[in-house]
Amino acid sequence: MSSDRNAEASSSSSSSSSYKKVLSPDTVNPNVRNVEYAVRGEISNRANEYADILAGSDEGKKKKLRFESVVTANIGNPQQQPNLAQKPITFWRQIAALTELPALLEDETLPKEVRSKIFPEDVQERARHLLHDLGSVGAYSHSKGAASIRKHVAEFIEERDGYPSDPELIYLTSGASGGVALLMQVLVADSSTGLLIPIPQYPLYSATLSLYNAHQVEYTLDEKNDWELDVDAMGKAVDEARAKGVDVRAVVVINPGNPTGNCLSEENIQDVLRMAHAKRLVVLADEVYQVNIYQPQTRPFHSFKKVLRNFGKSERQEERAIADDVELISFHSISKGVSGECGRRGGYFELCNIQPEVEAQVYKLASVSLCSSVQGQIGIDLLVRPPREGEPSYALWKEETDGIYETLKSRSERMQAKFNELPGVVCNEAQGALYLFPELRLPKGAADAASKAGKKIDEYYCLAMLDATGICVVPGSGFGRMPAQVGEDTLCFFRTTTLAKETDAFLDRYGTFHREFLEEHGGLKK
Amino acid sequence: MSSDRNAEASSSSSSSSSYKKVLSPDTVNPNVRNVEYAVRGEISNRANEYADILAGSDEGKKKKLRFESVVTANIGNPQQQPNLAQKPITFWRQIAALTELPALLEDETLPKEVRSKIFPEDVQERARHLLHDLGSVGAYSHSKGAASIRKHVAEFIEERDGYPSDPELIYLTSGASGGVALLMQVLVADSSTGLLIPIPQYPLYSATLSLYNAHQVEYTLDEKNDWELDVDAMGKAVDEARAKGVDVRAVVVINPGNPTGNCLSEENIQDVLRMAHAKRLVVLADEVYQVNIYQPQTRPFHSFKKVLRNFGKSERQEERAIADDVELISFHSISKGVSGECGRRGGYFELCNIQPEVEAQVYKLASVSLCSSVQGQIGIDLLVRPPREGEPSYALWKEETDGIYETLKSRSERMQAKFNELPGVVCNEAQGALYLFPELRLPKGAADAASKAGKKIDEYYCLAMLDATGICVVPGSGFGRMPAQVGEDTLCFFRTTTLAKETDAFLDRYGTFHREFLEEHGGLKK
Repeated sequence: MSSDRNAEASSSSSSSSSYKKVLSPDTVNPNVRNVEYAVRGEISNRANEYADILAGSDEGKKKKLRFESVVTANIGNPQQQPNLAQKPITFWRQIAALTELPALLEDETLPKEVRSKIFPEDVQERARHLLHDLGSVGAYSHSKGAASIRKHVAEFIEERDGYPSDPELIYLTSGASGGVALLMQVLVADSSTGLLIPIPQYPLYSATLSLYNAHQVEYTLDEKNDWELDVDAMGKAVDEARAKGVDVRAVVVINPGNPTGNCLSEENIQDVLRMAHAKRLVVLADEVYQVNIYQPQTRPFHSFKKVLRNFGKSERQEERAIADDVELISFHSISKGVSGECGRRGGYFELCNIQPEVEAQVYKLASVSLCSSVQGQIGIDLLVRPPREGEPSYALWKEETDGIYETLKSRSERMQAKFNELPGVVCNEAQGALYLFPELRLPKGAADAASKAGKKIDEYYCLAMLDATGICVVPGSGFGRMPAQVGEDTLCFFRTTTLAKETDAFLDRYGTFHREFLEEHGGLKK
Repeated sequence: MSSDRNAEASSSSSSSSSYKKVLSPDTVNPNVRNVEYAVRGEISNRANEYADILAGSDEGKKKKLRFESVVTANIGNPQQQPNLAQKPITFWRQIAALTELPALLEDETLPKEVRSKIFPEDVQERARHLLHDLGSVGAYSHSKGAASIRKHVAEFIEERDGYPSDPELIYLTSGASGGVALLMQVLVADSSTGLLIPIPQYPLYSATLSLYNAHQVEYTLDEKNDWELDVDAMGKAVDEARAKGVDVRAVVVINPGNPTGNCLSEENIQDVLRMAHAKRLVVLADEVYQVNIYQPQTRPFHSFKKVLRNFGKSERQEERAIADDVELISFHSISKGVSGECGRRGGYFELCNIQPEVEAQVYKLASVSLCSSVQGQIGIDLLVRPPREGEPSYALWKEETDGIYETLKSRSERMQAKFNELPGVVCNEAQGALYLFPELRLPKGAADAASKAGKKIDEYYCLAMLDATGICVVPGSGFGRMPAQVGEDTLCFFRTTTLAKETDAFLDRYGTFHREFLEEHGGLKK
């Protein structure tokens, strides 16, 4: 029996003095205690408090704040009100409404002539098809997700990559996160298991590794080299970890990168796959930003699946083997891209070159949580089967999605340019995704103040930014990229989304804060 | 490094002969391998295959089946088409449609006079409020769920129990399952942790314990005593497990019971809470069937929260302590009750007497998966704030929900009565929930045939039922209730939902099968 159970009595004031609570910080799962998830941590909690004050009626508290609104730039949540407020795609929501209330498809409820004005023919037809296939959005689907939607996903992948895709190897999940959590449970056998993850990385991976008490084996993305993957270094990291007894089993690649915005070249992906083959690693390809590509001519998106299967055409036998040997799991989501439908919780993953007996384990585990949200599944259907040219909804869909795409691209470019005008800020352009990850050079005064406050310097900076401007971002250390000393100064990072509706106001508020912060903390020497 | 990694080469035929797949049945997480989840297992997979054949165009295959439709009585999925097909509550779907497509609230899109005919005023008003509070159903909410909805849940609990409830201690989850999985991750510290669970039980609990490699400490529900909880025996099970070094931390109670349908008396709940206090156990109260109460006069629903807080009024100090000492987590869901909205994935849990530092860990873990589906959260809002008398939607809502309730109740009663008319079948009446759990007495011939087929006898029986009738149910062993020998005969169980639309046809098909099965396997001696 755990000796923790005899630890000191509960601090809960309402309990009887003699009772020791079963659950205390000392007795809960220590792996849970070790989880860190900075995207929603202290800074985001403080931002929530500020938002509550601004929405409340206590004028005294309001007056103490130095801003009139909170900008949640900490999380890629495009439709968040009031300061991001990306508009949902009309086609999506029309179909969602009809599948929720099928009576709207009946003349007795909604006369045909009114209905036709609101819901284009293709929308009505699609809703009818979905209802035919799903029965009711209120019913659990198949544990893998509705069969007809998985078939459409497979068709989408085939069209994207030019290679076959099997609906039985596609799982519809609660966002991409739901799929990652599920597969990591299958992958992590015990505490000797390790996964190779990028630094900086979206902290879902590090948090899940902590939760399962597995090893985080790191490979570093280099800001000096546009955050490219150094595949030789990745291989070395695997060797070193294995030499220490870590059973490194998989490599996580986020492409386009989060938080870096890097978009991998085909050659870089080929090298990763060669390395994964040589080292025997499963590849987890997080491709949720595959539509958020800002330099499509020079940096187009290449799916890992396509690059993997392309090896099958190689003239060299050992290269051809890669196509069928390397175990690949690719993730996609409706939360990002131009749809930004985070709240529906829709995602999918595709298994590639996974043994059938292993797939059976994945299937069983998926069954325990019954199924993902059916409106999330419908979202996937709309993601992979948008209106086609010539269909009644096409023009509006094209206008809306092009508009969102252009807005995201131009915001990213403007923000990046403006960041680089600030003293001590260097920011790579984002080739993709929804973020910028600027590097800050901060003076000794800031390091001293942070140390006095018991914070990491990037945390201290981001908290100061929130207090001064209402802008909520995430410190680089939350993505595993730690502050580094350079002479007397410190280099550190933060991640901001590029989603704020009022980009100029955002940049003004931030710029003013940054300059004042430098001044207050002793300024930078030239 | 795990020696498993050097096990025999992959069986995957497409791989190059020299490559060993990383993932094989030997290398995946052994805890995943050990998970069993019979609600969706071999029988349910075979039922899916039959349904595919019936929906397909291969007439030869169809002719080989001895039935024209599959009845999925294995899972409480009321809205499943075509054989269950419970109608969604209009009020729910109207609000879902309006929150999906807010343009329907605007005169330009839907003229006021048409709108008013489709959407009653209170529906429009509620949708406007939800949109005001949530912003967009496409945005991530707070990790705990939308604040305004949590407030409504707290009000519902206060009204139900007569005691305060704090919205900050309420979490909106992906069905109740999502909450159970999350909290069990917090509760299970290591492989010495044990949870006390009922046998028979809904296998979510046993599956999750397997997944986290924790101990399943069992207490037996007795069919002879209406499945009541024997609290003395529960206490003894805790003592025995602790004597063996198991750190028993919590007790799971499902009320009303799944699969048993038992509805606990207030006294029985009091005894459970006294025992939990004496033994220091967290109580996990799975109360998802709290609306499915079929004998409200003699067996009303008592929430654990209310009974817990009632101890505070006791004259004896040691009893009063229970009210603030015992850590309680209660679960509820929109998937059951009369709403049956499984596909939205909405649920909640409330923390009671949990230390704030522990709650902080729960919050952090909830944050990693971002939030539950927002339409699921809206479902919770509609569950806890139905239309009130005098509101325009009340009459229809009342008619629909009363109708569903009466249908569920009468089906349960008819099925139970008919089951008891069959030779060798004994079935308790369901006081609540959506299931019956009949006991079968099967002859030696059946045991021999099962053994020859390499199946448990209840599995063999249920597979035979599926092959003969298309009815898919779950063997009692899937809930932990194992077959037992009585002389030459075997006693075993199965669980069926009471949701089949055509109850009489269901009973005819099943009754004919059962009599034939007995005859084929040598019959029962009187």
